Amino acid sequence: MKAYDMVIKNGIIVTATDVYKADIGIKNEKIIEIAKEIDSNSAGNVIDATDKYVFPGAIDVHTHLDMPFGGTVSSDNFETGTVAAAYGGTTTIIDFALQSKGESLKKALEIWHNKAQGKAFIDYGFHIAITDMNDEILDEMKELIKEGYPSFKLFMTYEGLRVNDDVLLKALLLAKEEGGLICVHAENFYIIDYLVKKFIREGKTHPKFHALSRPTIAEWEAVSRAVKIAQFANAPLYIVHLSCMEALKEVTYARNRGLPIMAETCPQYLLLSEERYEEEGFNGAKYVMSPPLRSSEHLQALWEGLKCGQLQVVSTDHCPFFLKGQKDLGKDSFDKIPNGAPGIELRLALLFSYGVMTKRITLQQFVEIISTNPAKIFGLYPQKGTIAIGSDADLVIFDPSIERRVTKELLHENVDYTPYEGFRITGLPVATIVRGEVVIKDGKLVGQKGYGKFLKRKNLMVV
Amino acid sequence: MKAYDMVIKNGIIVTATDVYKADIGIKNEKIIEIAKEIDSNSAGNVIDATDKYVFPGAIDVHTHLDMPFGGTVSSDNFETGTVAAAYGGTTTIIDFALQSKGESLKKALEIWHNKAQGKAFIDYGFHIAITDMNDEILDEMKELIKEGYPSFKLFMTYEGLRVNDDVLLKALLLAKEEGGLICVHAENFYIIDYLVKKFIREGKTHPKFHALSRPTIAEWEAVSRAVKIAQFANAPLYIVHLSCMEALKEVTYARNRGLPIMAETCPQYLLLSEERYEEEGFNGAKYVMSPPLRSSEHLQALWEGLKCGQLQVVSTDHCPFFLKGQKDLGKDSFDKIPNGAPGIELRLALLFSYGVMTKRITLQQFVEIISTNPAKIFGLYPQKGTIAIGSDADLVIFDPSIERRVTKELLHENVDYTPYEGFRITGLPVATIVRGEVVIKDGKLVGQKGYGKFLKRKNLMVV
Amino acid sequence: MKAYDMVIKNGIIVTATDVYKADIGIKNEKIIEIAKEIDSNSAGNVIDATDKYVFPGAIDVHTHLDMPFGGTVSSDNFETGTVAAAYGGTTTIIDFALQSKGESLKKALEIWHNKAQGKAFIDYGFHIAITDMNDEILDEMKELIKEGYPSFKLFMTYEGLRVNDDVLLKALLLAKEEGGLICVHAENFYIIDYLVKKFIREGKTHPKFHALSRPTIAEWEAVSRAVKIAQFANAPLYIVHLSCMEALKEVTYARNRGLPIMAETCPQYLLLSEERYEEEGFNGAKYVMSPPLRSSEHLQALWEGLKCGQLQVVSTDHCPFFLKGQKDLGKDSFDKIPNGAPGIELRLALLFSYGVMTKRITLQQFVEIISTNPAKIFGLYPQKGTIAIGSDADLVIFDPSIERRVTKELLHENVDYTPYEGFRITGLPVATIVRGEVVIKDGKLVGQKGYGKFLKRKNLMVV
Amino acid sequence: MKAYDMVIKNGIIVTATDVYKADIGIKNEKIIEIAKEIDSNSAGNVIDATDKYVFPGAIDVHTHLDMPFGGTVSSDNFETGTVAAAYGGTTTIIDFALQSKGESLKKALEIWHNKAQGKAFIDYGFHIAITDMNDEILDEMKELIKEGYPSFKLFMTYEGLRVNDDVLLKALLLAKEEGGLICVHAENFYIIDYLVKKFIREGKTHPKFHALSRPTIAEWEAVSRAVKIAQFANAPLYIVHLSCMEALKEVTYARNRGLPIMAETCPQYLLLSEERYEEEGFNGAKYVMSPPLRSSEHLQALWEGLKCGQLQVVSTDHCPFFLKGQKDLGKDSFDKIPNGAPGIELRLALLFSYGVMTKRITLQQFVEIISTNPAKIFGLYPQKGTIAIGSDADLVIFDPSIERRVTKELLHENVDYTPYEGFRITGLPVATIVRGEVVIKDGKLVGQKGYGKFLKRKNLMVV
Repeated sequence: MKAYDMVIKNGIIVTATDVYKADIGIKNEKIIEIAKEIDSNSAGNVIDATDKYVFPGAIDVHTHLDMPFGGTVSSDNFETGTVAAAYGGTTTIIDFALQSKGESLKKALEIWHNKAQGKAFIDYGFHIAITDMNDEILDEMKELIKEGYPSFKLFMTYEGLRVNDDVLLKALLLAKEEGGLICVHAENFYIIDYLVKKFIREGKTHPKFHALSRPTIAEWEAVSRAVKIAQFANAPLYIVHLSCMEALKEVTYARNRGLPIMAETCPQYLLLSEERYEEEGFNGAKYVMSPPLRSSEHLQALWEGLKCGQLQVVSTDHCPFFLKGQKDLGKDSFDKIPNGAPGIELRLALLFSYGVMTKRITLQQFVEIISTNPAKIFGLYPQKGTIAIGSDADLVIFDPSIERRVTKELLHENVDYTPYEGFRITGLPVATIVRGEVVIKDGKLVGQKGYGKFLKRKNLMVV
Repeated sequence: MKAYDMVIKNGIIVTATDVYKADIGIKNEKIIEIAKEIDSNSAGNVIDATDKYVFPGAIDVHTHLDMPFGGTVSSDNFETGTVAAAYGGTTTIIDFALQSKGESLKKALEIWHNKAQGKAFIDYGFHIAITDMNDEILDEMKELIKEGYPSFKLFMTYEGLRVNDDVLLKALLLAKEEGGLICVHAENFYIIDYLVKKFIREGKTHPKFHALSRPTIAEWEAVSRAVKIAQFANAPLYIVHLSCMEALKEVTYARNRGLPIMAETCPQYLLLSEERYEEEGFNGAKYVMSPPLRSSEHLQALWEGLKCGQLQVVSTDHCPFFLKGQKDLGKDSFDKIPNGAPGIELRLALLFSYGVMTKRITLQQFVEIISTNPAKIFGLYPQKGTIAIGSDADLVIFDPSIERRVTKELLHENVDYTPYEGFRITGLPVATIVRGEVVIKDGKLVGQKGYGKFLKRKNLMVV
Repeated sequence: MKAYDMVIKNGIIVTATDVYKADIGIKNEKIIEIAKEIDSNSAGNVIDATDKYVFPGAIDVHTHLDMPFGGTVSSDNFETGTVAAAYGGTTTIIDFALQSKGESLKKALEIWHNKAQGKAFIDYGFHIAITDMNDEILDEMKELIKEGYPSFKLFMTYEGLRVNDDVLLKALLLAKEEGGLICVHAENFYIIDYLVKKFIREGKTHPKFHALSRPTIAEWEAVSRAVKIAQFANAPLYIVHLSCMEALKEVTYARNRGLPIMAETCPQYLLLSEERYEEEGFNGAKYVMSPPLRSSEHLQALWEGLKCGQLQVVSTDHCPFFLKGQKDLGKDSFDKIPNGAPGIELRLALLFSYGVMTKRITLQQFVEIISTNPAKIFGLYPQKGTIAIGSDADLVIFDPSIERRVTKELLHENVDYTPYEGFRITGLPVATIVRGEVVIKDGKLVGQKGYGKFLKRKNLMVV
Repeated sequence: MKAYDMVIKNGIIVTATDVYKADIGIKNEKIIEIAKEIDSNSAGNVIDATDKYVFPGAIDVHTHLDMPFGGTVSSDNFETGTVAAAYGGTTTIIDFALQSKGESLKKALEIWHNKAQGKAFIDYGFHIAITDMNDEILDEMKELIKEGYPSFKLFMTYEGLRVNDDVLLKALLLAKEEGGLICVHAENFYIIDYLVKKFIREGKTHPKFHALSRPTIAEWEAVSRAVKIAQFANAPLYIVHLSCMEALKEVTYARNRGLPIMAETCPQYLLLSEERYEEEGFNGAKYVMSPPLRSSEHLQALWEGLKCGQLQVVSTDHCPFFLKGQKDLGKDSFDKIPNGAPGIELRLALLFSYGVMTKRITLQQFVEIISTNPAKIFGLYPQKGTIAIGSDADLVIFDPSIERRVTKELLHENVDYTPYEGFRITGLPVATIVRGEVVIKDGKLVGQKGYGKFLKRKNLMVV
């Protein structure tokens, strides 16, 4: 038997701290050796990574595959979605199991496990989105934290999903006690509700009114409120898809006082601005997501938030809907457009091209943001999120010399558009390896459907 | 010939990102392998690190060995000082070569190289402290940056050492252009000068008036000024020995706007408060340093600054003077007391005990603060500052189970007191390894005088 | 017929801007002349004010007379309460008419008019506290703004009184449109509710747990939220009884951005600190009010807020309950103690003694805070709130040379204690004049019951 | 003899607090009565002010008449300058007596008294600009404070005028002790010096490089420094001609902490933006002043600073130079252009039109900013700065119904351009009265040359 199942030769290994050249030896799904030179002959499989970066497999902690929304379902399921993810260098996702009103959290998990079972090409975990809280649900939370589901999402907006502040408080207190983490979609419901109804009443139905109905003050207020309730509960808090400078300022102010507040943003909030809603015809619907795209000063501020570490994660909030047949449910009224956009495949390429290449962030920060921090925050570390002895051999071989112009055709997401059409990118994954198995190689899918494993998570860290 | 000169077995390796168990293989001064298991037989020397942490060698970027001050000389030279440093887990220091008025920078370097030559047990580099600027000195700076001396210190206070703001501006502009880094001792000269003279005039000569003559507003103003001049010059800036919350706020505000401002603090500012100046008799002189010790709210703020990453480095500003025979030069007047205190040996133990054990910082942050950040900021990375393939085998084997009460006798600093007398510490180095050679082992000095090498530095990073 | 009904001679007139010596001529309830010298012979009544200040009559915009709370009723009614107010130099109050659930606002006004009718010695107006909002109530608001009731209070806390954020938003939008003003009692309900139930469950029933159940974070969060919703509505907002530095910081931040946010504090929050809750036995109940007393750093911050104009008004929130027979309803559990404390009589004396005499505020700021700002904000200006031609002759002759130690016996409030027992005061009113009629003179009540008129208010100003 | 020398009938009197209709009776230069109705027959002179505002005479605390600068002299002297001022509604100016190197302050005063003597149509005082400090000068300061010259200006920039921080510190300490006030022109000298030399070296000589050589960071740094030194000295500080948002933020932050920091801005910084430097040919020279015009976001911020009271004064920094014959000294190099621009005549009209009419500030704030605050801060109050019994009868009758388009021809300033050419204004003075004497009436100069008196000042207030 060979000493190594696989050896990766001559790559430039990047971790959240280090950049160095070495060989990596893999055995039984794990990294067992990193060395100046490993003998190729002792390996079952050798991958040459000369002049390429070797990153820890990227982790996308915010995806919505096979997700019901507004009478339709997001168009990527756990098969198509994880394939697209793998093409992009993502080796683990954490998706959201959504509790139905009146149902248990376990019921939601059962449904979502069924959606994922036997389909995924990469590993996955589940957050649980709580929409209906009571004492039994609190008990379930306790139990589920122990069983590997330690993170919960609460919606502060969306009729039918949103919870009241008492629920947020209770959830934070429980999470503090039991070692869980509360994530919030933070927008003020009443402000949005008022504006949506006002615009509809005034006959303002174009997609751009989606954005106008969700001003930054709505996000600011909700983030501010959630942060203060978390401060009271002395509990960690994770803000999903933070999109504006005022919200960032709240997070920054809290972190500077030593509070365990964390936040993610997404490529769309870093790279796309509100002018997109003015695209001709119904095309603005491509960008109907919540929070909406913001003005360019916010984009600038978010990049600085990444640079100085006040934002810790870039996820995608991948939630694709076909423009034709799904988005157009809202042809006559923006409030009927399914919220969401695709993005699972381009996260690394975009952040590398527009972050690392422009020197907004360093190579190490890049790895921290797409892999290490997500792993640490959500309880996957040290199994995932780094290149170190004993960790899963989740690896991305990334060629920084590739240049492309993004087109829909380049991508594998199951949807009829990409918001990044025409973007120039520098650098793409040439191989994606999950637990020592190659899933993508030189643009070909070589992994197995169903290879992806469900991940129990524990030992959440504050970063 | 053995495959490895040395193997370290079973230790818990800690980097700024990771904590994991592995063996380390060393050859020709370098780390060449990290693996789940390395065969002991292939190694010339095997060190068992079971249940112990293996940290990258610590780097102290602020020491004053053999340093003339106020008519005397700091009591540790490059022999005694580096021995004490090694006992404490420090494998590299960066000391300050001090330009004399009217002399060249190279002259200063010549003098300091002579002080260090053949004496050091660990590696060392030099910052250059500029006290007399003109066009030739600017030319020298350019040249010296290329020759491995890329960091310069400017004093904003101290008669005879201080430079005017035009010098600071010129230095920052040049450093920006040439890839150097300006460090500042930031206190407002005029405020201090006014107070010192006032106190002396009023007969207030007790050591505590040293502290009262250097209020936080003096530090705040100077830090604020230096940061703004650096912002104008678009140059990185490093604040040495930051001691108060107002100064920290300036740094934080700048960093949150994406500016390349960095700052260090020291154990004394984290652990000792101004009440110390009230110790009986002349004992307050032990703590006469600049900036002085602050009130307890500042200590708390500095810990939070470390936690949230607004402070990047803990150095010692080690500058020891015997209480008897040196400090007492100021028996009759606080302004004659040589400024400085010992600390080179206890940095790791103190920061581990009062930072990691109290959960103020994580184990990874500890490594980042004492080793990785100093290495990156000052151009020693990746040769130093991490545990990775190709890096120097500078390693500290640290036993977290050791408990001690600090006494002068425990330490190897050449001075008759320690400011930390009586402090309880948890965790001490049990072995210190510099480029693959053991310097300290189980409390014994086994290294060679003169083994320590001068380090040329380049490729400074902003962290 | 005399040219003047009354002339006040030789007083030192103080307005929010000016301090000067002059005589004042009054005719038909109004000030008709201010002059260097007015002939005494032409006046029906002459009051000598030599060496005394003449202030515009003080306005207390936050009183609760004859107010039902927790199964009892505040112990001062419109007779006893307005007498005590007049003794203290207050010539106008604005009390709160409290809507009952399911009832109209007009019904509330009818009840409160009945309480006041024929009883008041000084003038009065009504805010309306809305506890049950719907479309009819919105219509009523519109109407009542036009009829002289332009200010509304919303409770963000208290079970049974509190309204949800949608109500706050609607009310702000309407007030913006119609020229009204929304006032909020800003504390986070859920945090308080959680703590109250927790303490009760744990058997912690002592009055001090009232304070511990209402931490500053609860006030901070609610103020922050209200300010942001007001910012969205682009509407003015008035924070009642602001008590802590974090809330002040929110107000300051908003005002500095040009937002029409205003706030009052009260003498108890400026002068009494949380140690009071430790008074022996049940005496802590004297200070059971919401928000509760805070630690001393907050007191200091509030004084600075007054000094720099970030706080615009000092009112009393006078809401007295007898310690024996009322407060002791909560003998066994702090949550049953009626909330509130007396203060209507000492406002001027306390603010003069601890504000003006200590130079924390100027004489003109004093007048602005107790009279001019309240008048402008709440639509009484220029009828009230200043000493100018055409304004009501509401005047206080104030002798700054009087020194007293406060005792319950000194006061005329109908309650068995004063929170200010033992306070030394400098300066007291020696005459209180309402619309040209003397109500109090040299410590004697000479006014007529029922003389006080209901005031319609309009033209609210932002200060 | 008539009871009144003059009566002003039916005007709408405006003070910093009040707006009301009344008649004003004047005798022996003073206001002796304000009343609902004063009998016209008892007055020597009656002015009808029906439908017009009556403001307290405006005070311009920052003018440079007959001022040497860069080899020429500002083109308005104390005759032409005070005439223009009076046309604009200004009844008092405070000009700057400039110490020459090596000369005493008294010598400077002697020179400036000679410039003013017998020429002024309105009252005037002198600040003293200190350029050469030593112990004798400190003694002189003490003496001069007592003699009616309590305010001193220090330049932090300009070669030949600027003083070092030690001088600033000494001056602040003395002013604190003796009741004086230090004013600073706050720009960082070294940054400007660096940029000026750099631009000249690069052949960039166009007027716009004046502005580019004085970036906001230079002002920010100097204001920040001055504020902190004043905080240390515990002394009041007045920032002249504040022009940018960063500097305003420093002032705001200081004032919110209760510090006695005050600041003025000028109409040019509120109304003109940096695009002006792009005017064709040499026309950009019209706007060469220091600090320079800023980008539009700063203008917006300054208006908000006025609104929320963080800026207390609007002065003009009137320092006119003819475009032909003076400004063109710098035809070949921007650094030779005399710094300054005219503005003394339009201050009220501009601030009324663009402040009051647009509702950025209230009518009372207008009066506070142009008259009351300047009077209080600089020791003219209560003699000047208000309309109250005993104050000087300095009054402006202002007709808010007049509409004009500004042209050079409209104005009386002795200079060949106005920076406000083409501005639409609403409201102009129709009469200007100084100590009971009419100086301007219906567009005619009716005052006497030399009527204006020198004013000794005392009792400075912090506002």
